[in-house]
Amino acid sequence: MDLDVIEALVEPADTKIVLLVMDGLGGLAGAESGKTALEAARTPHLDKLAAQGICGLHESVRAGITPGSGPAHLALFGYDPLRYQVGRGVLAALGIGFDLQQGDVAARGNFCTVDEEGRIADRRAGRIPTSENEELCGLLRQIELPDVEVFVETVKEYRLLLVLRGEGLSGAIEDTDPQEVGEKPLDPEPRTTEAQHTADLVREFVRQAGEILSGREPANMVLLRGFSKRPSWPRFPDVFGLRAGAVAAYPMYRGVAKLVGMDVLESGSELEEEFATVERHWEGYDFYFLHAKHMDSAGEDGNMDEKVARIEEVDALVPRLLDLEPDVLVVTGDHSTPVRMRYHSWHPVPTLLWSEYCRRDDVSTFGETACLHGGLGPRFPATDLMPLALAHARRLRKFGA
Amino acid sequence: MDLDVIEALVEPADTKIVLLVMDGLGGLAGAESGKTALEAARTPHLDKLAAQGICGLHESVRAGITPGSGPAHLALFGYDPLRYQVGRGVLAALGIGFDLQQGDVAARGNFCTVDEEGRIADRRAGRIPTSENEELCGLLRQIELPDVEVFVETVKEYRLLLVLRGEGLSGAIEDTDPQEVGEKPLDPEPRTTEAQHTADLVREFVRQAGEILSGREPANMVLLRGFSKRPSWPRFPDVFGLRAGAVAAYPMYRGVAKLVGMDVLESGSELEEEFATVERHWEGYDFYFLHAKHMDSAGEDGNMDEKVARIEEVDALVPRLLDLEPDVLVVTGDHSTPVRMRYHSWHPVPTLLWSEYCRRDDVSTFGETACLHGGLGPRFPATDLMPLALAHARRLRKFGA
Repeated sequence: MDLDVIEALVEPADTKIVLLVMDGLGGLAGAESGKTALEAARTPHLDKLAAQGICGLHESVRAGITPGSGPAHLALFGYDPLRYQVGRGVLAALGIGFDLQQGDVAARGNFCTVDEEGRIADRRAGRIPTSENEELCGLLRQIELPDVEVFVETVKEYRLLLVLRGEGLSGAIEDTDPQEVGEKPLDPEPRTTEAQHTADLVREFVRQAGEILSGREPANMVLLRGFSKRPSWPRFPDVFGLRAGAVAAYPMYRGVAKLVGMDVLESGSELEEEFATVERHWEGYDFYFLHAKHMDSAGEDGNMDEKVARIEEVDALVPRLLDLEPDVLVVTGDHSTPVRMRYHSWHPVPTLLWSEYCRRDDVSTFGETACLHGGLGPRFPATDLMPLALAHARRLRKFGA
Repeated sequence: MDLDVIEALVEPADTKIVLLVMDGLGGLAGAESGKTALEAARTPHLDKLAAQGICGLHESVRAGITPGSGPAHLALFGYDPLRYQVGRGVLAALGIGFDLQQGDVAARGNFCTVDEEGRIADRRAGRIPTSENEELCGLLRQIELPDVEVFVETVKEYRLLLVLRGEGLSGAIEDTDPQEVGEKPLDPEPRTTEAQHTADLVREFVRQAGEILSGREPANMVLLRGFSKRPSWPRFPDVFGLRAGAVAAYPMYRGVAKLVGMDVLESGSELEEEFATVERHWEGYDFYFLHAKHMDSAGEDGNMDEKVARIEEVDALVPRLLDLEPDVLVVTGDHSTPVRMRYHSWHPVPTLLWSEYCRRDDVSTFGETACLHGGLGPRFPATDLMPLALAHARRLRKFGA
């Protein structure tokens, strides 16, 4: 559904909506226990909300597609991730909290190793440590280009971010990374006539980078890909008529929230501090995006006990939200991160929506199997959540007479 | 799905389909009973159909969107209401059973009160009674415009319908209703060059209306909005290959049926008379749309006992339909009207489809919670119903070889 269909129906109200995202919430049952982390966790508060609310499992992108964190959050915010795609450069900027401005061109970079003939020997320069990356980025900051500011930022290990800031820049530049060992780095080809100027700047950046890194080991060159600009999308507060505040400990999630126009609220990074931030700002906003990270990390570490403990930690804080008396509370994850896969997965994500106006289903605990029988359905599009939250908050007019 | 996909697959058969729409059927559980009106009602016949058939809950427009009666019925007839949108003027005409013809331009109007400076003091003229509206419409029928017929019809209280009939008219006219007290009525601006002529006619109508009503209290002016023409859509009988008859006591529902090309069957307005009308015409049609209104009115009145009684009244008449031996019987609502909301809502609508060729699910009673576990799913698009009804009536060919 187009966002403008919703925007046309939005009407003001003084109701409040909280979206609590438990990162990587979904899982697969352990072989012995037969339970997922969420099912194994003791979650009396979430269970009560599930019993009083309506449940289901959502898919962020489409059936079978494992979402990255960016697309998964965009879907929860109501933006179809197939339609609202973010370039890799922009995602890299969001991921490290770089304050990307309208008009900036960002690219994701790798430090790599090239041989004497300039052919790529290792696309990741032996996965150099982050500390060495930082040193090299320091060197590359010497690079000067005519009429543009150049930012070179460490992401992690061999990965870096390049941002060019200036007038008339374009993101329509082909990758210089051939993604193939034995090839030479590619020339940054412009995809449009307008992009010729930017391509020339990038070529000059790469030339100077090669000079500066020449003779070093193992990182003696850079590869760039995913040139992109910050997109001009409909803003979340405009589309949904909600003053929106985002609370997240990790830069990536703050970045995606900022990308759609939410205010990022200053917060300590401990979970309890995040909840306190929502409390502190309860008067100022209509919508709160509250992000809890550690389920996902535990899943990626393959640590079932840790994932269970992190879920229980969130559950214990849920009464703090209820004390604020939100009109609508949505609890879900952005994607699944099953412990035995140690990675994001495509499995639908448990979701509960709680409000006075819910039509209750007969789900009485919050877990993957229980949610299969919920009123939201076993595989519903994550983009349905925002319209549903608005409806339950009495913020949508009737469509047609 | 595009209608032409279905149209291409339709094949003739001598089977009959009945669509029984119980207006405002869906509800929310009462706080004490824990049951919706449908769940509280004694419905042995509907329960038996649910047990023998396949059940689920549909959404007319999209998740979270509360449909008006027009869009909700279009969805049941297989027309995606986001794609097939009707202007407010056309809806007003349908609502009072005005026989709108191709090329007519209709607008919804309000009698209003303006002060000495012509500024709007009350957009609804103190909600004058319908009898006064009728008197005023009589006066406005004096208005003559060059080369067009002018129709001025009472809708209800302060609401009226204006229709212009003639050659070369356009619906691309901006509202004259600023929807704001203290403003003057707006000039009817044409949105296209072609609409200039119609805008001039509307301006002259408004001028004469102001003269005629001048000095009256409280209704001394008219405001117009939603200028629109009857749309040229694919006709239901052509798309689905069904001779279709509609039986409805209220003009709005007859109007929507007529809009898609169904025959409106003359009928008494009592529920029993509506069922008798279907019986009387059983030889003449392949598809019957039978509309029962009073669940919705009871819901809007906040009267749970009445809503329960009205549902039981329909249930008691169901055997009359079964005696006709339809091949497919679909029973559903157009939208939910929960007693405790006293208004249309977005909650999915209980649905049963009964036919010899149903794959039964394990739903054994007709109710909101029971339907969650049905084979049609807990939130399926209402536009799926027509293709499903056709399939069960053996009226759809195989797609592809």
